[in-house]
Amino acid sequence: MSRLTAEKNAQDMSQARAKTSIDVARVRNFLYIKQEEWEAHQKLVWTLSTDPVFDKSRRPFMSRTERYTRAVGMANRIYELKETHKWSDAEAARAIQLVDEPIPMNLHAMAFEPVITSQGSPELLQKYRELIRYRGILGCYLQTELGHGTNVAALETTATYLPESKEFEIHSPTLSSTKWWIGALGKTATHGVVQAKLILPSGEDVGPHLFFVQLRSLEDHRVLSGITIGDIGPKAMHGFPGTDNGFARFDHIRIPRENMLSKFAQVTEDGRYVKPPHAKLSYGGMMYIRSSMVSGGGWNVAKGATVAIRYATVRRQGGKGPDGLEHQVISYPSVHYRLIPMLSRAYVFILLGRNLSSAFSHMSSRLASGDTSLLAEMHATTSGLKVLVTTAAIQDLETARRSMGGHGFSEFAGVGRMYANYVPSATFEGDNFVLDQQVVRAALKAYHRLVTSGPADMTPSTHFLRLLLEDTSNIGGASQLAWEDPQTSIRILELRAALVVKHCALYQDGPDASMDQRVSKAVTEAFVAVQVGKIITSLRETFGPRESDVLTKLYLLYLLTTVENGLVDVLSFRLLPQSTASSASRSDDSTRTLRVAIKQLCQEILPEAIGLTDAFGFSDWELDSALGVFDGRVYEALYARAQTEPLNGTEVPEAYEADIKPMLQRGQKLAEASKCKL
Amino acid sequence: MSRLTAEKNAQDMSQARAKTSIDVARVRNFLYIKQEEWEAHQKLVWTLSTDPVFDKSRRPFMSRTERYTRAVGMANRIYELKETHKWSDAEAARAIQLVDEPIPMNLHAMAFEPVITSQGSPELLQKYRELIRYRGILGCYLQTELGHGTNVAALETTATYLPESKEFEIHSPTLSSTKWWIGALGKTATHGVVQAKLILPSGEDVGPHLFFVQLRSLEDHRVLSGITIGDIGPKAMHGFPGTDNGFARFDHIRIPRENMLSKFAQVTEDGRYVKPPHAKLSYGGMMYIRSSMVSGGGWNVAKGATVAIRYATVRRQGGKGPDGLEHQVISYPSVHYRLIPMLSRAYVFILLGRNLSSAFSHMSSRLASGDTSLLAEMHATTSGLKVLVTTAAIQDLETARRSMGGHGFSEFAGVGRMYANYVPSATFEGDNFVLDQQVVRAALKAYHRLVTSGPADMTPSTHFLRLLLEDTSNIGGASQLAWEDPQTSIRILELRAALVVKHCALYQDGPDASMDQRVSKAVTEAFVAVQVGKIITSLRETFGPRESDVLTKLYLLYLLTTVENGLVDVLSFRLLPQSTASSASRSDDSTRTLRVAIKQLCQEILPEAIGLTDAFGFSDWELDSALGVFDGRVYEALYARAQTEPLNGTEVPEAYEADIKPMLQRGQKLAEASKCKL
Repeated sequence: MSRLTAEKNAQDMSQARAKTSIDVARVRNFLYIKQEEWEAHQKLVWTLSTDPVFDKSRRPFMSRTERYTRAVGMANRIYELKETHKWSDAEAARAIQLVDEPIPMNLHAMAFEPVITSQGSPELLQKYRELIRYRGILGCYLQTELGHGTNVAALETTATYLPESKEFEIHSPTLSSTKWWIGALGKTATHGVVQAKLILPSGEDVGPHLFFVQLRSLEDHRVLSGITIGDIGPKAMHGFPGTDNGFARFDHIRIPRENMLSKFAQVTEDGRYVKPPHAKLSYGGMMYIRSSMVSGGGWNVAKGATVAIRYATVRRQGGKGPDGLEHQVISYPSVHYRLIPMLSRAYVFILLGRNLSSAFSHMSSRLASGDTSLLAEMHATTSGLKVLVTTAAIQDLETARRSMGGHGFSEFAGVGRMYANYVPSATFEGDNFVLDQQVVRAALKAYHRLVTSGPADMTPSTHFLRLLLEDTSNIGGASQLAWEDPQTSIRILELRAALVVKHCALYQDGPDASMDQRVSKAVTEAFVAVQVGKIITSLRETFGPRESDVLTKLYLLYLLTTVENGLVDVLSFRLLPQSTASSASRSDDSTRTLRVAIKQLCQEILPEAIGLTDAFGFSDWELDSALGVFDGRVYEALYARAQTEPLNGTEVPEAYEADIKPMLQRGQKLAEASKCKL
Repeated sequence: MSRLTAEKNAQDMSQARAKTSIDVARVRNFLYIKQEEWEAHQKLVWTLSTDPVFDKSRRPFMSRTERYTRAVGMANRIYELKETHKWSDAEAARAIQLVDEPIPMNLHAMAFEPVITSQGSPELLQKYRELIRYRGILGCYLQTELGHGTNVAALETTATYLPESKEFEIHSPTLSSTKWWIGALGKTATHGVVQAKLILPSGEDVGPHLFFVQLRSLEDHRVLSGITIGDIGPKAMHGFPGTDNGFARFDHIRIPRENMLSKFAQVTEDGRYVKPPHAKLSYGGMMYIRSSMVSGGGWNVAKGATVAIRYATVRRQGGKGPDGLEHQVISYPSVHYRLIPMLSRAYVFILLGRNLSSAFSHMSSRLASGDTSLLAEMHATTSGLKVLVTTAAIQDLETARRSMGGHGFSEFAGVGRMYANYVPSATFEGDNFVLDQQVVRAALKAYHRLVTSGPADMTPSTHFLRLLLEDTSNIGGASQLAWEDPQTSIRILELRAALVVKHCALYQDGPDASMDQRVSKAVTEAFVAVQVGKIITSLRETFGPRESDVLTKLYLLYLLTTVENGLVDVLSFRLLPQSTASSASRSDDSTRTLRVAIKQLCQEILPEAIGLTDAFGFSDWELDSALGVFDGRVYEALYARAQTEPLNGTEVPEAYEADIKPMLQRGQKLAEASKCKL
């Protein structure tokens, strides 16, 4: 009889899949750029998922030490496979992403190698480039300290130049200068790049610079003398268990002069400081990481949305339909209203990130030839997008988890694990609340430029400010019909950003406490809206009418829900047409046409929801979720996974003799005594 | 030198403490009701925190099996201490709350015992009451199934009455009917109360009823024949690790007729069904749990706020002040704007919950004498408050965690643990999205009553509807000054609720997808606002002018931030006075006076923040947070805790020989080969 439940689940899923009208493979190739990329991706997934090293079945029951051991094992195996299969560096990087768990080697590839390659002196590169490239040494990037993170200028670790021996002395002068949170430092890395204040022989502090420091012996992996290293302990909500985020203290550690990363700034043999040609030349690394977080956020939302939409498709609750069965949960507006817009965000962020990566490459090549003109714009854009995408994606993962009701709280649902691994992105690589200030600063600068010099030099990220010079009285979505035009939302979002920035500039003497967050959000949302408008325009060229129609609705939904989420600004600046009636007609809600338009769009996209999630191309191994299984047999999967819980290894738990039995016996005795008294 | 950091931390904390102008002990006694309660609480804390069974230092490193074993050990110890110290049941219950971890025995006390006591037949009580009371048997409450939870009517487990043997047969007919999520069922409970559809000999299904079923042998704790029991596995984000949430399947299990909880509904010996006198008489249990979640949410927010505010007080970042030191993080408006309103919510929820408990007792005594008149109102109020409080408290815990930047993601910060244990409250005891519908239903009913019969029978929870009959043109907070009067916010929130309900009634044929959530929120916030108004009025009677002044500001801040969070409704119904200028003056933001008022209030409360958190009376043992230590020595605490991480037990990790060394050697060989090629 149990089979009945599972068959019904499977039937619901295949019927939903059959309802899809779009060509899923075509949309999937669009998300993976092209068919060849998708096939290469599939090959990697097959290689990893059939290799026992990457098996996930025992993962939920492992201790942190076991998770760390497993993570390092996966890293070693990936590099072994890289040799066997002649994978490119990009393929190996993709494999590391695919293991669905932050592993120590991430940092070697994402931070250690790029920063040395781009900023190391020719001597240093000559000596170490190949070793780093092939992981003959394993690296980490030591920036954050116990007392400071995002504010690099306040770091306390010192690197004092000693002209007599032509060495730097790396030192941790205080408890709070202890390097902390450093990925792969705790147990794995043999070398590191240390951010430290450069102190000249004169005693002058010329601010933070980077130094290449050996941490562990290449003979036996023991920590070098004078350095104290350890793992900082478990992370909240069991996130990042496989990564050995570590701490390090340096007690007057000497390194040779060439170990300073001195492509830009230098210290001469006799201890004079040579300034870099441009103060921000070393910003590239952080921007690169931030820009990669945009697509990354999109794929995370995609995973959460896929699991939640699949489960809501086979889960039946509440009132019964004409077929005598309870309704599929996804059919309830209060459910799909939470999930379909999430799908639209995944589609937007994935494409946005791809465009940003191209823009970043373009900037990097200009930068390599000394042209820093694109740097400020890229800095503002990546900061704003990092905040926007991570904030939204974190919230979406939790919304997805909660949409699954009670079972969403099972580890086997998988979305809690995704959340725990993703949530620190709000505070790392620049705390979102601090990054907001960068966006505000750039926007205010652009505003003042506009006011003083006119609209000549407007950059894409603040192009919306032009509206302050135009007649905008015709902007606003009044009727149901107006919301069907993407330009309605785009213009509202642009004008809202312009007004918020202007308002911020006017009240600069004392803005209210949440001003930076609102400005940053408005500015970035306007920028994204324009990009989404361009994506919509290009859809007809890429697709047949059916896919183009569905995806247009999906991207339009992104715009409408962005307006909805920004309604406080939109209403307070009166960007929706007001009813002409007096305040007596207070029950006339001016936001209703927008909300109804969103509801209708969700319902139109609904039959395509399973197809749109299938287009992400996730295998069951990638999702590792009992509620997100491709075939829909969710209860069977959940039941099967519960049987693997170690507590179920014995019928009577260990705790019985020690504590349950004494508790029962005491209780029986007390009950007996109490009854006698009665 | 390390000591310097710690001394500075400690100094910052004691200076902040010295700045407090309120009498902390007096405010603390107010939160604990009275001095005697506080002293009793302190005694309990001392007893537990000095007992090694309740030591928390190894907790972050334990496996789930170890966490379960520890949890049962704590339960056994608490009942041992109860006998030793002659604790009352209430004191034992408080001790269970104090261990800062959901433990299996929670469910025996919160669900199993109350439901049997209130609904069991005299025969059943005669046989089991004392055993239950003294835990001579250990119980669980089996409601949720794999396929259904909140919607009790759809549960599939059956209890078929067999007149020939005068027994019920409990059976799980499908996979999806497997009982699931049941706290203490997996490994601990010997008995359970099973929700099952009662099937009469005629075949008639008369819906869900409760049955008392033995699950495990009292001899050796083995599972009884015909029953399959196990633990459902780990929970998301490592929440509830000590609780053995379990599953159970019943294969035609026979129980005697008197095991039906038959105080209200009954089945006669020959199999006739006797209806309960009132359909909702059995609702009490769920309402009791929900009402207890209001104060519970408040204390959870209090913990998160205490940790975050303490850390923000000693953490220094960013620009330097006149003393040459960086600013305390708490001094930034973007930080305290997130934390001070959180403090206000803690103070509101704690008091609100206390009032609700009194109201609940009142209703229960009326109910016991057959008076069901208060039931519907209590059901709507507890549903709405459960949603409001859990939603806000979950968000506050995450906001608190994120306000701490990178370190907030350390397990040792403690707030991630609080979040993981608290977050399921959004989906258990009634999924918040489902409960919203209950609130909407009650509000619409009241609206139609008002429209048809006038304002005669208005209940407190929908009293705001009276405004639909009044002239409300004078409502609205225009000036800075107006916001100082609590009535400004209260009237706005009441009118907003009235208009949202009216709007919902008018569009009932097709409300937009988020309507239920907005209505429920508006309705409950109006109810709470009125209560907060009453609390403010009573403060002058309870306190001296200083405390009364500070607490008035804190409760006023709750009202103002509630209006701020509801601005979309408030603006769309035009409840803030509009500028008389035309739409040309779009840069005139009508919400600014409100925001500035909030900012000012936060700044006025700021010097009292440490005092207001101290008034919660948490010991370091209770908070178990390196960043929330009373003395402010946060970096010392974090450093010390990191040293206890098991990975730090060996200098070279186990993974070295197996994977790190091979990876390094392969890399060195490849680098060598590559260099030769060059």
